[in-house]
Amino acid sequence: MAIMSGSRRVRRTVFSSGVEAQGVKAYTVYNRMLLPTMFESVEFDYHHLKSDVQIWDVACERQVQIKGPHAAALLQKLTPRDLTKLDPTRCMYIPICNRAGGMLNDPVVLKVAHDTFWISIADSDLGMWVEGVATANGYDVEVSEPEISPLGIQGPRSNELAARIFGDEVRSLGFFRVMDVTFDGVSMKIARSGYSKQGGFEIYVPGSEVAMPLWNALFTAGENLNVRPGCPNLIERIEGGLLSYGNDITEEDSPLQAGFGRYVSDSQLDHCYGGGALRKEREHGIQRQITAVALHGDIPASDRAWPIYKDGARVGQVTSAARSPDFGTNVAIAMVDTVARAPGTAIEVETQDGMRNGVVKDKFWI
Amino acid sequence: MAIMSGSRRVRRTVFSSGVEAQGVKAYTVYNRMLLPTMFESVEFDYHHLKSDVQIWDVACERQVQIKGPHAAALLQKLTPRDLTKLDPTRCMYIPICNRAGGMLNDPVVLKVAHDTFWISIADSDLGMWVEGVATANGYDVEVSEPEISPLGIQGPRSNELAARIFGDEVRSLGFFRVMDVTFDGVSMKIARSGYSKQGGFEIYVPGSEVAMPLWNALFTAGENLNVRPGCPNLIERIEGGLLSYGNDITEEDSPLQAGFGRYVSDSQLDHCYGGGALRKEREHGIQRQITAVALHGDIPASDRAWPIYKDGARVGQVTSAARSPDFGTNVAIAMVDTVARAPGTAIEVETQDGMRNGVVKDKFWI
Repeated sequence: MAIMSGSRRVRRTVFSSGVEAQGVKAYTVYNRMLLPTMFESVEFDYHHLKSDVQIWDVACERQVQIKGPHAAALLQKLTPRDLTKLDPTRCMYIPICNRAGGMLNDPVVLKVAHDTFWISIADSDLGMWVEGVATANGYDVEVSEPEISPLGIQGPRSNELAARIFGDEVRSLGFFRVMDVTFDGVSMKIARSGYSKQGGFEIYVPGSEVAMPLWNALFTAGENLNVRPGCPNLIERIEGGLLSYGNDITEEDSPLQAGFGRYVSDSQLDHCYGGGALRKEREHGIQRQITAVALHGDIPASDRAWPIYKDGARVGQVTSAARSPDFGTNVAIAMVDTVARAPGTAIEVETQDGMRNGVVKDKFWI
Repeated sequence: MAIMSGSRRVRRTVFSSGVEAQGVKAYTVYNRMLLPTMFESVEFDYHHLKSDVQIWDVACERQVQIKGPHAAALLQKLTPRDLTKLDPTRCMYIPICNRAGGMLNDPVVLKVAHDTFWISIADSDLGMWVEGVATANGYDVEVSEPEISPLGIQGPRSNELAARIFGDEVRSLGFFRVMDVTFDGVSMKIARSGYSKQGGFEIYVPGSEVAMPLWNALFTAGENLNVRPGCPNLIERIEGGLLSYGNDITEEDSPLQAGFGRYVSDSQLDHCYGGGALRKEREHGIQRQITAVALHGDIPASDRAWPIYKDGARVGQVTSAARSPDFGTNVAIAMVDTVARAPGTAIEVETQDGMRNGVVKDKFWI
């Protein structure tokens, strides 16, 4: 196993010293920033995430801030989702497309002031697209990356832990709802969100001074809740069908193919980038879509796309896969041609270690 | 030391199987792709690079292809460098700036057809900026990432090795000159370029089929030249003053601050993004600039910026540093305020392991 080299280019986060002190064993790089991928083992972390509560350094979910008189207009032009209902009490998942309808990112957006938005991005330099469009169109906005570092509290005991730090009012925060809380006299936003199906929060921690005090306070307050450090867990996210931009969807895929049709508003398609292409795709029928797949036998590490065949013909690719202890099978996320998406369809999958048999599922393991 | 997790999102290259077979020990991630950072040790690789010849998997230098009737016009709008002399026999280093003059990337561009250019990028999604500008402005171009994977031949014996594979005509290829060569019947471009000061070539390998045959042929042909796998070497590149985008320069820095004034053409400043800001900076005087710095004592890994102080006042930051065996000192690249740039200026540098004394140099170690 190769080690990860450090450099300023692969940025540390405001929580890195805490992550290191907790014995992080593996990293990936996300938005040119360190993202832990394993503490004890992927399986150990998985069981713990499902039973207790974890603190996640997800500072790599950088914020693209759009601020200025034209911010709202620019934002609506960037996404096919109708943002009429966006207000400071909620966050919204918004696909962002190029003119061909291919996804450039699949972020969550927060409205933090009447003329200011934070686009909390997945792994691509979406700020370059936003700045390019804003510059070329002459929008009166500033595009920047503020010093905001998301910190996750995830797992079934999240409510209890968050309440101990921020007060009982966070317990009743609705899904994808946002409120302001205070720690050490510093105001910050907390959302009922996160990249697991176990429930929890994401805290948008401002600056660096309050970061490690908050990190440490969470571990102290959670001691008798069996709190541990954690991170997005490969097995749990595949079971839950949580897509990963760059893994399961790329610029080659549209939000309709990604299964995000409910975030593609017909009313917006004349006004946003990629709208024409998405309208055409919706009218002509979606040719392939994200699909749950189970694989038999032992599988290698899922570090590349695996072609899928049905009766010898290529019908898609597996993009993420892992053995699930709880479901006793290999769970996988795949992009599958419509012709092969019927649940129960038998498929063959070409891994780097050879062919594996599999079957198309009707839904993810949730 | 934490290990690097694999996933499809952190893309393998067409040479990854060769890199693995050669026993790569460490990676970084560059343009969401694997980039080796160490084979034997950074010091061993350094000495070998300076004495023999290495093969580098630099496929992570992705190409942003601009193709179409407006390609040349768009390209000239993207950079402050006058591209009048760009033709298919040469490549050019072109800073690319946002409207504030901050660098979005520092790529090399090739003209591969009258209406087609490859921008061979450093570590940022420059394609998003290009596509954003092209889309919003209505340029008639296609922006894409073709399947082109740069492969480096670097070191004093590069000429001999390249000639054995591509013929003697490559020996006389001038610096930053480009020619077409053939391997296994496949045509490809080769440039006299690369991210070391030891001389060599970059081959723009098309597709995946010819990639490993070429990799293997280079190792076979170079056996009695002591060829080894290599990669950009931290020590050698700092000695030579080769800047790394993301490490030494970011969107916060202008090409003038990076020392690239010769690539900022006055004649272009009315026509390119960031031109106005660059003109203003040139007129008002550059406030800080990339500078060679020597540091005394033992230094930790250079994985974050280190603030520089002079007489207690902050005057810049060290962005890359390493111990140089050949020069018997710690060599470093820093961004230093003009007030402190006089060679011989004594400075203090705040590393994660404490303060170190240092001195401003008149030039890099070349």
